Amino acid sequence: MNIAILFGGSSFEHEISIVSAITLKKVLKKSNLSFIFVDSNREFYLVDAKNMKSNHFSDGAYKKDKKLLLKKGAFCTVGMMGLKEQNLGTVLNLIHGRDGEDGKVASLLEFNDIAYISPRVDASVLSYNKLYTKLYAESLGVKVVPYSVLNSGDSRDVELKYPVIIKPVRLGSSIGVSIVKSADELDYALDVAFEFDNQVLIEPFIEGVLEYNQAGCKTSEFELSIIEEPNKEEFLDFEKKYLDFSRSGTVNDAEIVPELKLAIQESFKKVYANIFEGSIIRCDFFVVDGEVLLNEINPIPGSMANYLFDDFEGMVERLITKLPKESAIKIDYSYIHSIQSAKGGKRQ
Amino acid sequence: MNIAILFGGSSFEHEISIVSAITLKKVLKKSNLSFIFVDSNREFYLVDAKNMKSNHFSDGAYKKDKKLLLKKGAFCTVGMMGLKEQNLGTVLNLIHGRDGEDGKVASLLEFNDIAYISPRVDASVLSYNKLYTKLYAESLGVKVVPYSVLNSGDSRDVELKYPVIIKPVRLGSSIGVSIVKSADELDYALDVAFEFDNQVLIEPFIEGVLEYNQAGCKTSEFELSIIEEPNKEEFLDFEKKYLDFSRSGTVNDAEIVPELKLAIQESFKKVYANIFEGSIIRCDFFVVDGEVLLNEINPIPGSMANYLFDDFEGMVERLITKLPKESAIKIDYSYIHSIQSAKGGKRQ
Repeated sequence: MNIAILFGGSSFEHEISIVSAITLKKVLKKSNLSFIFVDSNREFYLVDAKNMKSNHFSDGAYKKDKKLLLKKGAFCTVGMMGLKEQNLGTVLNLIHGRDGEDGKVASLLEFNDIAYISPRVDASVLSYNKLYTKLYAESLGVKVVPYSVLNSGDSRDVELKYPVIIKPVRLGSSIGVSIVKSADELDYALDVAFEFDNQVLIEPFIEGVLEYNQAGCKTSEFELSIIEEPNKEEFLDFEKKYLDFSRSGTVNDAEIVPELKLAIQESFKKVYANIFEGSIIRCDFFVVDGEVLLNEINPIPGSMANYLFDDFEGMVERLITKLPKESAIKIDYSYIHSIQSAKGGKRQ
Repeated sequence: MNIAILFGGSSFEHEISIVSAITLKKVLKKSNLSFIFVDSNREFYLVDAKNMKSNHFSDGAYKKDKKLLLKKGAFCTVGMMGLKEQNLGTVLNLIHGRDGEDGKVASLLEFNDIAYISPRVDASVLSYNKLYTKLYAESLGVKVVPYSVLNSGDSRDVELKYPVIIKPVRLGSSIGVSIVKSADELDYALDVAFEFDNQVLIEPFIEGVLEYNQAGCKTSEFELSIIEEPNKEEFLDFEKKYLDFSRSGTVNDAEIVPELKLAIQESFKKVYANIFEGSIIRCDFFVVDGEVLLNEINPIPGSMANYLFDDFEGMVERLITKLPKESAIKIDYSYIHSIQSAKGGKRQ
């Protein structure tokens, strides 16, 4: 299969997207891969597989690579002889955070009729914004971690039961997130969060909460990963985060009772269907008093959560054959023709 | 001011977008206008002002116009000498329905750093889908018309109090919408609606409900239109719909008590702020038992609801100076550099 890994972007997670892409190069062994880098200025570059090393980007060496232009039907190089279409295959959107997860990349690819693996624009907007995720999940009958919302202009004089966790409504990878243990720490944590967004969520911070991650997608049927009980540290430092985004091994299935496993799987399927079709996502759940609560949807998980699947590459291939397509709309100008004949042939 | 009217699109409302654009040509008298047509195949064309007549499009004559390509920073023509940037000014997104209202056009323009008047991608997704509109409004404390949701696979054996109105969750301009007066009409109405979408809303149809439309935008402050009491006919036939999208006169302010006017204005402001910044929208409200209920958000109203404003062109100019801009994200590769030094200088 021809697969073009699209990575980078104008995102706080630009660098970990590079790490994700390098990892997927190792994971997708049988596929014919191309690499499209989006630099911080949102220019596209076609990167040779042999240059897929982190310093190629951090040193700016990528700037000597071929620039690409996206037009209807294909990415193109621009040369002396005009535009030249590059047949790169299905795009795998691996841009974490802004651009990749907020609906922009999905829109660019959809509008230009490029086949792609990614949440579509609506699924992107609902999962990129943690408040909208809650509204969406609740509308499906999927329970969520309780929350309140604070806008940057609002009074900070709020009654809270500490500890709480403060999150900007957008952004991933714990950026701008703080755990607040008492009222005197609140102001600073809100300042930090409002640096990144004008709306924040406040949730109870549940010490030692049971946490489970479920990834999956829908090909001809649902293909669900094992359920992982993730690392419990409060925050990952850069070295651990790097390990997290460069994971390519396998992990063990969480040891949980069958009823809980089924409840997690059912919640995942409710969240996924139908708006996430075409994408591989990871949902992070908490279990509190035996109840499964959706914590977050990770619409483009680090290295696509490949390490949670037995046959990741096979699944990607199957997904490529089942990508959703917008319905065609036939425009026959019957409406304008009707107006014109109603006007007695007078053309306006 | 240089303004580029973007219209057409791969949308069921393609033709009325053409009517809207022709109308705005008459309304924006002082501006230096360009016209960018998106044909049904999503190719961009630069249309001469003198060709802004409906038959130029319905006859296919537009295909002889210059094709445009959208790249970082500008729309370009493609010629013998390569790409030539066209300085067309701020884009006014006038594509009704799919492409224009679903977030795709906003994404294309945002990603490519083109200034534009339109709901941004998140506001687009929330207003394009009538179910998400309800979830969003309810989260703000704005009351909505009561509703239930039916998916295309669901049992149709539902208890309803007739009459009801059936709406596909997406699409505007009454497409796929039916009023169902008794149970034996339900099946057919659902068939029609599911032709257009896999999810429909069912709402009570309230005969003779009081309906009020409020348009506006936020420049340095809110600029609200008069409140209109719209035409009460159940459905507009094509001739009336044409009139509706080509309106350029003025209408009278609805005769309502000051308290109701204020309540409508306050609801509009809640819905608009902050995610609709950069756009001119119209909200349609019902008043039932003295309560203001949001019926729909029209993110790109027909001919931009120009006829509801005293100084539409002045407002557009003021809005152009107040368009929101995504924050810049500085990417300094400090994270990758840290990994590299942690590895003792070994580059991976």
